Amino acid sequence: MQRIVVLAGGIGGARFLRGLRSAAPDAEITVVGNTGDDIHLFGLKVCPDLDTVMYTLGGGIHEGQGWGRADETFTVKEELAAYGVGPEWFGLGDRDFATHIVRTQMIAAGYPLSAVTEALCARWQPGVRLLPMTDDRVETHVLIDDPEAQGEEGGRKAVHFQEYWVRLRASVDAHAVVPVGAETAKPAPGVLEAIAASDVVLFPPSNPVVSVGTILAVPGIREAIADAGVPVVGLSPIVGDAPVRGMADKVLSAVGVETTAAAVAAHYGSGLLDGWLVDTVDAGTVGAVEDAGIRCRAVPLMMSDEHATAEMAREALRLAEEVRA
Amino acid sequence: MQRIVVLAGGIGGARFLRGLRSAAPDAEITVVGNTGDDIHLFGLKVCPDLDTVMYTLGGGIHEGQGWGRADETFTVKEELAAYGVGPEWFGLGDRDFATHIVRTQMIAAGYPLSAVTEALCARWQPGVRLLPMTDDRVETHVLIDDPEAQGEEGGRKAVHFQEYWVRLRASVDAHAVVPVGAETAKPAPGVLEAIAASDVVLFPPSNPVVSVGTILAVPGIREAIADAGVPVVGLSPIVGDAPVRGMADKVLSAVGVETTAAAVAAHYGSGLLDGWLVDTVDAGTVGAVEDAGIRCRAVPLMMSDEHATAEMAREALRLAEEVRA
Repeated sequence: MQRIVVLAGGIGGARFLRGLRSAAPDAEITVVGNTGDDIHLFGLKVCPDLDTVMYTLGGGIHEGQGWGRADETFTVKEELAAYGVGPEWFGLGDRDFATHIVRTQMIAAGYPLSAVTEALCARWQPGVRLLPMTDDRVETHVLIDDPEAQGEEGGRKAVHFQEYWVRLRASVDAHAVVPVGAETAKPAPGVLEAIAASDVVLFPPSNPVVSVGTILAVPGIREAIADAGVPVVGLSPIVGDAPVRGMADKVLSAVGVETTAAAVAAHYGSGLLDGWLVDTVDAGTVGAVEDAGIRCRAVPLMMSDEHATAEMAREALRLAEEVRA
Repeated sequence: MQRIVVLAGGIGGARFLRGLRSAAPDAEITVVGNTGDDIHLFGLKVCPDLDTVMYTLGGGIHEGQGWGRADETFTVKEELAAYGVGPEWFGLGDRDFATHIVRTQMIAAGYPLSAVTEALCARWQPGVRLLPMTDDRVETHVLIDDPEAQGEEGGRKAVHFQEYWVRLRASVDAHAVVPVGAETAKPAPGVLEAIAASDVVLFPPSNPVVSVGTILAVPGIREAIADAGVPVVGLSPIVGDAPVRGMADKVLSAVGVETTAAAVAAHYGSGLLDGWLVDTVDAGTVGAVEDAGIRCRAVPLMMSDEHATAEMAREALRLAEEVRA
């Protein structure tokens, strides 16, 4: 049985995983999920990326928007607003609230996030083993201009990633992206073991900075991947000169990376990445990526439906076998 | 301006208060609310009696059932059940959940329950000052037979009041009612001051054991009422030989009190109670109550609508003036 480890962010990672599960139905898939965009709202612990993976693979996702629950209602949120309690910019629905209530209650009772995630997945049966990257608190902050700051040169301030992404919709420049707490975080139980035992490691077309990058920022994970001695293959989240979805260009530029498929591959680096899939529109960049020591193929990378996504996953596994051979 | 202090439980207290507010629109009404039936559910702090008063006076109550919110939905609860998380026997609706989320978040932030209650009332504008009896944790437990207990004589166990009242529907005998924590609780800020400054103290037709009795179990409150030197008038929750609503007979018998209007008056005692209203069907008991040193009148005590309830409140205030004169 093939053992596959996937480092996943939210929507892109979750959709890719659905295709992968379909492409490799007999594989044992372990997902290491990003928790850097976790946030405490209304006193509840919200894990957007873990939940997006869980809901998507468990059949509960709102297909249209890619996050949150299908058939969702917003009564609790409206009532909270009636109390003057926000934020209103974060879309928590009633069904979703239940997940956060269960999680918060279990964490208050002393369970680590990894145990909580396993308990939640007992309901959703995602068909993969979903692990948070860490049980420790990591919170991605984004440094932006602060127009209200004093001083001649103007000031900057750090905001929670969700505030940057959801409230501000990445409409202002990001000067830095900092996964606060990552440097002292430990990989969650099972993460390093799964990587060491894997046959292949995949980076789905998730955000290379705030999703995959945050997971790699947890000490030990990048090293474990490099040490595993197995093919590491990624899929470009950039098609042409724009992210397939989301606003990855803003956070890429914060870390000095161009918004191109080739630049993202170089950002991961040949020390980590063995293979890289770019979209057919970026076929012209294959040579440059290969010159940088990363095997590269151009294939359709639009996750328009599960069939297309499964085909992407098959291409990634094929490239992994090429790398292995 | 007349200053009225009311010791209130849930449904009976709340409905009486609506009548009182209508009967004495210019009075300054302070409600000391029972918190002995507070319960932590799903990691959230739920205060059923405070909320029933707040929702009833604020126009948000489910009129038919007397507790919970009007136009309520139960999505969160259904989702919690889908996670296997209960209890399912406690009816928390989506609108209601928001109240408990706000309360729990404020308490976690360090606010005492009295400050939280004031903040919640800023939305509901109940037209009274609603104070919890205490900011400390008091939890009413009921001692019942435990059929699973070992030993020749059989054992007993203590259950939370809500488990006895809501889950078991008081279907088994209560051997004792214990307000755990009451002996070390302090009255919430403002409670003793309101009593000392009051012109009259009223006991609505609330449960004399688990509602008014629990409030009186907080050290200092009973003494403050006795020391205030103002008329203290109660309304019988027992009409004929049955509680008007609820299952007060079970908890009355646990404290050795008969389920009659006269016995409840004697339970409060002439040292505390100056006046007592019984229903017209209990007119025959007026003499016995007065013989015990408590002025007594028989008037209609069914809170069938706000008009009837206001008339009950007027009778209570009239009796207070008789006592004063």
